[in-house]
Amino acid sequence: MKGGRNRADESLSACGHAQADVSPYKDQEKTVENLQKILSCIRPVDKDYLKRAKLRLNSLTKPLESLGKLEIVAQRYAAIKEDLNPSIDRKMIFTFAGDHGVVEEGVSAYPGEVTIQMVLNMLAGGAAINVLAKHVGAEVTVVDIGVNHDFEPAEGFVINKTGYGTKNFAIGPAMTYEEALKSIKTGIDLVDECAGKGVDIIGTGEMGIGNTTPSSAILCVFTGLPAREVTGRGTGIDNATLQKKADVIEKAINLNRPDTEDPVDVLAKVGGFEIGGIAGLIIGCAFHRIPVVVDGFISTAGALIAVALNPTINEYLFYSHLSSEAGHKQMLDKLGQGPILDLDMRLGEGTGAAIAMSIIEASVKIMTEMATFESAGVDTAL
Amino acid sequence: MKGGRNRADESLSACGHAQADVSPYKDQEKTVENLQKILSCIRPVDKDYLKRAKLRLNSLTKPLESLGKLEIVAQRYAAIKEDLNPSIDRKMIFTFAGDHGVVEEGVSAYPGEVTIQMVLNMLAGGAAINVLAKHVGAEVTVVDIGVNHDFEPAEGFVINKTGYGTKNFAIGPAMTYEEALKSIKTGIDLVDECAGKGVDIIGTGEMGIGNTTPSSAILCVFTGLPAREVTGRGTGIDNATLQKKADVIEKAINLNRPDTEDPVDVLAKVGGFEIGGIAGLIIGCAFHRIPVVVDGFISTAGALIAVALNPTINEYLFYSHLSSEAGHKQMLDKLGQGPILDLDMRLGEGTGAAIAMSIIEASVKIMTEMATFESAGVDTAL
Repeated sequence: MKGGRNRADESLSACGHAQADVSPYKDQEKTVENLQKILSCIRPVDKDYLKRAKLRLNSLTKPLESLGKLEIVAQRYAAIKEDLNPSIDRKMIFTFAGDHGVVEEGVSAYPGEVTIQMVLNMLAGGAAINVLAKHVGAEVTVVDIGVNHDFEPAEGFVINKTGYGTKNFAIGPAMTYEEALKSIKTGIDLVDECAGKGVDIIGTGEMGIGNTTPSSAILCVFTGLPAREVTGRGTGIDNATLQKKADVIEKAINLNRPDTEDPVDVLAKVGGFEIGGIAGLIIGCAFHRIPVVVDGFISTAGALIAVALNPTINEYLFYSHLSSEAGHKQMLDKLGQGPILDLDMRLGEGTGAAIAMSIIEASVKIMTEMATFESAGVDTAL
Repeated sequence: MKGGRNRADESLSACGHAQADVSPYKDQEKTVENLQKILSCIRPVDKDYLKRAKLRLNSLTKPLESLGKLEIVAQRYAAIKEDLNPSIDRKMIFTFAGDHGVVEEGVSAYPGEVTIQMVLNMLAGGAAINVLAKHVGAEVTVVDIGVNHDFEPAEGFVINKTGYGTKNFAIGPAMTYEEALKSIKTGIDLVDECAGKGVDIIGTGEMGIGNTTPSSAILCVFTGLPAREVTGRGTGIDNATLQKKADVIEKAINLNRPDTEDPVDVLAKVGGFEIGGIAGLIIGCAFHRIPVVVDGFISTAGALIAVALNPTINEYLFYSHLSSEAGHKQMLDKLGQGPILDLDMRLGEGTGAAIAMSIIEASVKIMTEMATFESAGVDTAL
């Protein structure tokens, strides 16, 4: 990163931070130095809590490890919160919306105006994320981080624009370095706002016509995989458009030459405002030790940026589902974590995060509400 | 089947049944003829509703088919209920408990008494199924269909014993043919009882130390696969016990020679009372057109029996998850349906069914609560 390293100093001494309500980034300028400061304050998850949570789970009236992923999720949740008796009462999903200049290359099945229409649909409660969030008891906040439109203020709506859509990265950088930093800071600020208000888990989501294109580009940059191998159909493009989309990505990477050693540069060259917002949200959650549920393909592109800035952040992330968008598996492989669900979904908005949140909540209840062999008078294994 | 065919007559004329509150089996004797009567009244799911539900889903503000399995589940739910605007208000899980004579061969990691202890744990609300059912808003009914103990009556507890545990099928049939019919009827009767009370979805579950052994045996009988290939570790046995378990199953099949053309005979020779109860529950649900969520390995053994009695029944079933018990995949392959979830679970009790119920409910809400492109003023694909 310009003026910094893309690996955080994992020692706490430089930071002295335990768990403040507000990050050192709050009300500070969106400089590299300030981003570096918060990154350096993210500490690893306490492994001792993983062990203690496992002992607790092993004492419950069920065969050892018989709840599989639920038990692993519960252990990780307890360790992040440093609490063997946690409860998930307040769940929030942030759905970042942004537009993409690259849409003018004809890479999407939908016209760019749909970003605006879908934001209004979400504010009216008619989108998939509204239905699924309500089902699992999560609140949705829509964040206009870069839609090419001036919206009226509304309940559950944050307007904090980095810009009115990115530039077409087929002909130059998607955004400036400063805009990339600003989009990240917008995400961090949102967590600063709600961290003191008892939020137990946060989900990521997005809406932005064209945004599988920058997400695929970010994947290509970090893995070196060729675009034709990992580019997918997004909202549903045909074969000719798919070929064009891969070509655009290949061309954009060759033209802009993003620096893999500087994740902010990658975001600026071939990213998107909502991807930066998601990266920032994830950084803010790791700083505040709030478990984050990463939605699908675009959200995982945001996670790639955040984890490249500080690999410790990955310890705070739950990958909700394996998207049916081509390339998502390669992203998860790169991040070294498996998904909780595989429902062939590829909608975005935070829909996968919403469903996975309910599974995570179930796993936490298993850990805290089941009887033990001792309390129930049940014999243990022979 | 003795005195009958193992394929139902799919014409409705013989039955004249639309959707009575009570099956023709209710208060009738547990004869083959009466079982045949209810089987012959099960009609195929109306394919036209699948299409109409798909059209509805395609009109909603999301890319076509972008919610993957959720959309398929919603279509199937609508078709079973013949209702494009269904809601899942009341959910019930039936957890059948039974003991197994084959435990005396030393095939389980837990002593047989644990069946009794776990029934009491469930009635006290301390088991995994209690926690997960509460999380998803489902009611649990524990059914003593064959535990080797006399329980006191309790709330949410049905005592309707086929017997005090099966016999050791390593040395003779697990139960008589009449007992097999009785266990099936117990399951059907439970659905008759609740079908008129607005139950929207029913989940299967079980508890019975040793019951992966009969389930593996049923799998071997219906697929011809050798026991050593499909026998799993159940609650967690070691390698030596695993070998012994496979040997016991192989020996039992050779000794008892279950007739694959007669699923009731298979249940009698190498099954279990709770497996018969689950088969009956599934038959009753198909008769009453109530969607059924099949839990894991043992429940799917019950589904194998039910579907062998009438293949149309499979149209009413949702397979909740892929159990990590060896052999479950082969069961699902035989039944030709994929699971909704894959969470490496192998606990039983109905735990997988509970979690999957919530996913099915989410899918139904997607179909009924989302805005359409038209109502939300969102442009469709280019």
